[in-house]
Amino acid sequence: MAGIERVRGTRDFSPEEMAKRRWVFERIREVFELYGFKEILTPTLEYTKLFQLRSGEEVVKQLYAFKDKGGRDVSLRPDMTSSVARLFVNEFQNAPKPIKWYYIANMFRYEEPQSGRYREFWQAGVELIGSDRVEADAEVIALLVESYLATRLKDFTVNIGDRVLLDEFARELGVEDDVGLMRLVDKKDKMSREDFIKALRDFGLDDGSVEKVLSLIEMKGKPDDVLPKAEELFRSEKARAEIERLYELVDLLEAYGVGDFILIDLGIARGLDYYTSVVFEAIAPNDIGIGSIGGGGRYDNLIEVFGGKPTPATGFAIGIERLIPILEWKGLLPEPKLGAEVYVIPIGDDPEVRRAALKITAELRRAGVRADHELMGRKLRKALDYAGRLGVPYVVLVGKKDLAEGRVTVRDMESGEQRTVEIDKVDEEVLGLLRR
Amino acid sequence: MAGIERVRGTRDFSPEEMAKRRWVFERIREVFELYGFKEILTPTLEYTKLFQLRSGEEVVKQLYAFKDKGGRDVSLRPDMTSSVARLFVNEFQNAPKPIKWYYIANMFRYEEPQSGRYREFWQAGVELIGSDRVEADAEVIALLVESYLATRLKDFTVNIGDRVLLDEFARELGVEDDVGLMRLVDKKDKMSREDFIKALRDFGLDDGSVEKVLSLIEMKGKPDDVLPKAEELFRSEKARAEIERLYELVDLLEAYGVGDFILIDLGIARGLDYYTSVVFEAIAPNDIGIGSIGGGGRYDNLIEVFGGKPTPATGFAIGIERLIPILEWKGLLPEPKLGAEVYVIPIGDDPEVRRAALKITAELRRAGVRADHELMGRKLRKALDYAGRLGVPYVVLVGKKDLAEGRVTVRDMESGEQRTVEIDKVDEEVLGLLRR
Repeated sequence: MAGIERVRGTRDFSPEEMAKRRWVFERIREVFELYGFKEILTPTLEYTKLFQLRSGEEVVKQLYAFKDKGGRDVSLRPDMTSSVARLFVNEFQNAPKPIKWYYIANMFRYEEPQSGRYREFWQAGVELIGSDRVEADAEVIALLVESYLATRLKDFTVNIGDRVLLDEFARELGVEDDVGLMRLVDKKDKMSREDFIKALRDFGLDDGSVEKVLSLIEMKGKPDDVLPKAEELFRSEKARAEIERLYELVDLLEAYGVGDFILIDLGIARGLDYYTSVVFEAIAPNDIGIGSIGGGGRYDNLIEVFGGKPTPATGFAIGIERLIPILEWKGLLPEPKLGAEVYVIPIGDDPEVRRAALKITAELRRAGVRADHELMGRKLRKALDYAGRLGVPYVVLVGKKDLAEGRVTVRDMESGEQRTVEIDKVDEEVLGLLRR
Repeated sequence: MAGIERVRGTRDFSPEEMAKRRWVFERIREVFELYGFKEILTPTLEYTKLFQLRSGEEVVKQLYAFKDKGGRDVSLRPDMTSSVARLFVNEFQNAPKPIKWYYIANMFRYEEPQSGRYREFWQAGVELIGSDRVEADAEVIALLVESYLATRLKDFTVNIGDRVLLDEFARELGVEDDVGLMRLVDKKDKMSREDFIKALRDFGLDDGSVEKVLSLIEMKGKPDDVLPKAEELFRSEKARAEIERLYELVDLLEAYGVGDFILIDLGIARGLDYYTSVVFEAIAPNDIGIGSIGGGGRYDNLIEVFGGKPTPATGFAIGIERLIPILEWKGLLPEPKLGAEVYVIPIGDDPEVRRAALKITAELRRAGVRADHELMGRKLRKALDYAGRLGVPYVVLVGKKDLAEGRVTVRDMESGEQRTVEIDKVDEEVLGLLRR
């Protein structure tokens, strides 16, 4: 029969890819933990209604939803924030605040596969629950910047928008369907200016309002340039207070030492319906068709929606399938160190020799050396060929005659040099060669 | 509204649980890599037919199977071996042999939740593809033993059975439904002796055959005791050759230095239909109702079933949800080191002070200290209470007057001792205290 394919939009990760992914995960994990965040994990499956309550139309449309054998409506998680809010409501409402949690986990969305977009994908994210203060927003945004820096990425920005301002904007325009307007604004980068203007008109805006929307989405740049302009655009007290908060946020981010990476972009809405004020997206310029490499925002209502006491929260998620292609494209990922450092070959079929060789392999592993053992019954020449193809740097040859004299041979595969070594000093010898 | 529950048979992992799980994963990962295995990962979703082809009745019955939005029949993976075989067939048939892969991943089975059994569970496993030699079986069984030892577990055995011998046994008894007999034998530990005998009679065996089955399942113990008895029980050449192979296997495992952990148990069949000769299960005696903590075996036909060239293979999986409760019950898991080591508190609301405090937090983190920052706007006393509840060992107090003199205060939360430190030496001071 023919081979069975993997499911469209999913991937297999080879050892080389896994090693790179692990490197990225570990760099991010280290920074998350330096910031005092602690790892949690929730189930891959949740009741579908958890995601329907507040996830935004797009996400709900893309759910992997089905009935389990018990007739329950369940879904594969499309993101982690809903599950984290559920966990908080059910078990952690009385824990000291703020709660600082992180996760590195896979998510599922049934959407059209494209560059950096898969149906199963990984996110590394944090949630900071319990603080409504701008310090909390600054903490997660600074952490987002530091996370990218930890992966050696330097050419990126975190662009900050604000849902309160967008709401106020819609209100001032007299738009009732403010969510609809936000969705439209969110898609501005995915269409031409003409199409965007047409879409705004189709949405029902008059020329004056279209002009205003265009001036809003042009509010993008360094905070010192944009925030004063925003002050001119917005008149309401609520909007003014929110802009004041953005000034404070930017000031704190300067104190964190990450100010250079911050832009204000008041045209950012973000698809998820649960955001309530600050929202942000990280962008790394690239030629490979990758959009946002992460983002997040404040969600002060979600926990209440899930049945909890009103509790403010803020957080972000890094899109691993967006970040890694950019790191690869820029050549920032280190070469993975994979597989065996030494390969032990018994010469011939003598059971005594095979046993002795196995003991040496076991001894090397106990000494902390990544060791392979010949497992195919290959003769010497073929075994050496195999070592060459695998790129194993050292080989230990165990022969009958050597063995009788308490010795084995260590071969440097690059130079071809060989040395005879006392059997109980093989680990020392190999460690010496490897650490040289 | 009331809180939304999590789905039955799934769990949330708190930071404490995650830290323990991570410790276990890392110990196992280290040993896997010392043995020269490399990590891979396959998608969570596969076409359902992949698992129907050769997974065994039980597993297929318990599949989380559904139609995706494109109308494809897909399933959440119930184990990894089928996916690994698919990956090998599709992309790695021409790679140098043997292939040594490992994975640490979650699996899904819709079965009744009970002690150590969940509907989403984790396995750490290896697959060694391409060698039909007994050395390959010895390599994975030795690795299984070393994996448990790496988690500090000492009181366990790996019990080895053999499907060739069971097949021969069924043939010698004249049983046509050999798979049916194996399923029955597999369940022997889940029923009383009387029920087992009754089940054998119901299966159609006469008294003489029942006697033989009972003598077979009593073939359990140290290899030196059991293998000679097996030689008496089996007459066919095929069986004799297989027993010879078991002798060799045991001999190699002695050379690996893991002989003390090995038992022979010819009554082990293992549910999965794809095993072809050696099968094994790891058992750790316990009072908490946990059965096998891992197992595996040789599967020489599976790759052909999936459309590949005939390729022998062997492997195992460790059941993380079986292992961890035993480690906890025995008190073998280390206390996790979690959360912040120092907590920085700005005193008062002065923006200057808040900025300075943030800078100190950022500096501490850059120095590799896990640092929390006061994010709730708490006053000093409440902030110190919080630090006490969290168990943070040191606190840095940043006050306006101190600051004007270029100083801050470092407080030891246990002793209550305080020291004034120059602001640019805080990281040094805290590192000194922590590493003391």
